[in-house]
Amino acid sequence: MVPHLTTALNGPLLDLEQRILNAQPAIEHWFRSQWQEHAVPFYASVDLRNAGFKLAPVDTNLFPGGFNNLNPDFLPLCVQAAQSAVEKICPEARGVLLIPENHTRNQFYLQNVAQLARILQQAGMKVRIGSLLPDLTEPVTLQLSNGAALTLEPLIRTGNRLSVAGFEPCVILLNNDLSGGVPAILQNLQQAVIPPLHAGWTTRRKSQHFAAYDRVAGEFAQLIGIDPWLINPYFARCGEVDFQAQTGTDCLAAQVDSVLTRIRAKYAEYGVSDEPFVIVKADAGTYGMGIMTVKDASEITELNRRQRNKMAVVKEGLHVSEVLVQEGVYTFEHIHSAVAEPVVYMVDHFVVGGFYRVHTGRGADENLNAPGMHFVPLAFETCCTLPNPDCAPDDTPNRFYAYGVVARLALLAAAVELEEADDERTD
Amino acid sequence: MVPHLTTALNGPLLDLEQRILNAQPAIEHWFRSQWQEHAVPFYASVDLRNAGFKLAPVDTNLFPGGFNNLNPDFLPLCVQAAQSAVEKICPEARGVLLIPENHTRNQFYLQNVAQLARILQQAGMKVRIGSLLPDLTEPVTLQLSNGAALTLEPLIRTGNRLSVAGFEPCVILLNNDLSGGVPAILQNLQQAVIPPLHAGWTTRRKSQHFAAYDRVAGEFAQLIGIDPWLINPYFARCGEVDFQAQTGTDCLAAQVDSVLTRIRAKYAEYGVSDEPFVIVKADAGTYGMGIMTVKDASEITELNRRQRNKMAVVKEGLHVSEVLVQEGVYTFEHIHSAVAEPVVYMVDHFVVGGFYRVHTGRGADENLNAPGMHFVPLAFETCCTLPNPDCAPDDTPNRFYAYGVVARLALLAAAVELEEADDERTD
Repeated sequence: MVPHLTTALNGPLLDLEQRILNAQPAIEHWFRSQWQEHAVPFYASVDLRNAGFKLAPVDTNLFPGGFNNLNPDFLPLCVQAAQSAVEKICPEARGVLLIPENHTRNQFYLQNVAQLARILQQAGMKVRIGSLLPDLTEPVTLQLSNGAALTLEPLIRTGNRLSVAGFEPCVILLNNDLSGGVPAILQNLQQAVIPPLHAGWTTRRKSQHFAAYDRVAGEFAQLIGIDPWLINPYFARCGEVDFQAQTGTDCLAAQVDSVLTRIRAKYAEYGVSDEPFVIVKADAGTYGMGIMTVKDASEITELNRRQRNKMAVVKEGLHVSEVLVQEGVYTFEHIHSAVAEPVVYMVDHFVVGGFYRVHTGRGADENLNAPGMHFVPLAFETCCTLPNPDCAPDDTPNRFYAYGVVARLALLAAAVELEEADDERTD
Repeated sequence: MVPHLTTALNGPLLDLEQRILNAQPAIEHWFRSQWQEHAVPFYASVDLRNAGFKLAPVDTNLFPGGFNNLNPDFLPLCVQAAQSAVEKICPEARGVLLIPENHTRNQFYLQNVAQLARILQQAGMKVRIGSLLPDLTEPVTLQLSNGAALTLEPLIRTGNRLSVAGFEPCVILLNNDLSGGVPAILQNLQQAVIPPLHAGWTTRRKSQHFAAYDRVAGEFAQLIGIDPWLINPYFARCGEVDFQAQTGTDCLAAQVDSVLTRIRAKYAEYGVSDEPFVIVKADAGTYGMGIMTVKDASEITELNRRQRNKMAVVKEGLHVSEVLVQEGVYTFEHIHSAVAEPVVYMVDHFVVGGFYRVHTGRGADENLNAPGMHFVPLAFETCCTLPNPDCAPDDTPNRFYAYGVVARLALLAAAVELEEADDERTD
């Protein structure tokens, strides 16, 4: 089952997927040269929005959950890509300590951790799972609802080395986005930490990611001869917003207005009759907390107390003061009457699968990764690497190829972003 | 459907697959370090024989046909591995000229070429097929019985560059094993030729391959603590045999006797009650021509005229004077009453699939890749990279993992062999 694209394409908008398909050899050649220049993150997932006329990333997760939602047929692709990632990043490694989030009751997340451990094991690594849970004093085995079991073990810090009982890992693989800060036990380790600590939300900023994406998308757009806007959402940021004290909201309203104005001009240029909207969200953070759909700047100045409180904090109680205003991209993919948003998974620079978040209770202009939201994952039924020039440009294999291309652009932006963050740290 | 292993394992023989399974992290770590030291061939297929107590490669093909026989579900694995191979060997390449064998009526082979072209295209390359057929003066499109079409184009040599009309490739990929010698049109090209010309049967010798395999298997056996014989067939060679003139056959008979004696000692050591046999074949060549099963040295001195003629020439009329005597490994895998021999395919150093040659008309001690032989290909139903320690060591995923390990040992031996051949050439 593949979502139906419920938007009529015509004129200049029709040809985005066609151009991606035609330029496939040039695109893959370009990616090869990019990966020679930039160190690729170990893994990532990218949320895309497909408005038919526009296909753009809206979020890039460097600590991806959801590997349990991928099509099991593509597990070998994940294993092969993980072998490739290990070869590049830590060829000498034998043992990996995987550090997950502290969610012990989220079955879906735990299944993701079990699946990640399985992928790494099948790629030939010894894998143990070390938990940051503060009150874990001995190993605990969780039985998961899909039949798998997961053993979490307490971390042991000895000097500058991290271990669990009887297991000295070569590499620490984080599946924890460090929203609550970098715990002391992870700081200044001798072992390689992947992704690096500065990829966590303590230091990472979405605006830096999308600034890097701006450049990547610009270069790519030139390569295949398209308007970069077709793959790139406008954005702006405000650095000093206090939703509760209601300071900085004038700046925010002005930025919202500016982004809406720019979208309006593009919609007019391309004859798009939908109403422009922006997404306002925390510049650091995840899980779709503190996220708002806005169609007019006045909504910002008229927030009620409940809305202000909702925007003021994200995961782990982190206070929001830096805010991203991102062009909203309509999701025009539907399964029956439910909205569907693709999420693409990559290990090394290989696209290894993906799934749709399918949500019956939300609109095409809303974020589908919100707290308490119960999406149904629908695994991609084919993989993203089999474009077929004999099919129509928006037939399944070609639409999925386009997803894989745009997701890899976001991955490349993440590589550039981490490089620049690393340069700043060491300067 | 997976062949049934019709041999009773007990005592020290039972544990080959168990040891491979237990040592998986050490094995993968070792392979990673090997691939940092040795340049991996672009692709290869390896014929294995599984006697239950012994699992060994008997032939390593550096110009593999048969990609059409792989499970279509694993096409994405092939594409991903091909991307990885291109990255390593020719990252700058945009266009590939594929040069196949001159078989224009062998539907199976042509489907292999079409499948290879498809894999390369989906990996992002521009692909054209240049033919060495001497009387081809303009492009010809062949309609294949599986619905695919294949366009063969005449080669154009301009100075030291090879092309087809309107297409200047960066890389020449050979799927032609050069049994008939290296055509002048392929010599001294500016473009990269993959595999290198000295991987062709004009210069390559099976005995050099198995000499390299000896060392690789020895190191691997030490790593996992087994007798190397369990994965390594004995062999010997004679350099000056003329079957028609009946000279050099005394040497051959002596080598046959020596190898049989060594096998007999091993069979006695392990309590194997089968009758030892050797395979006598051309040291250079392919397609299973000039191949003989021998159980006693006297058979060599008593060859009749028909047998001598059969042994004297291989593909393309190449005259045989160098002969390999290889320990015969029983095939104890059966589907119903048919003998089945696994063939494992690799692109870069990744195992991307395989199939069984299933043959009703042959015995467990005969070569299954013989001229005029009509095997039925049975694609591996699962891939070779998903070992499962919760299953028995000879359950399908683990047996296939063992296949993939031994096939990669042969691939590594091929890498070493080509390296050494290259050193000799440039000395």
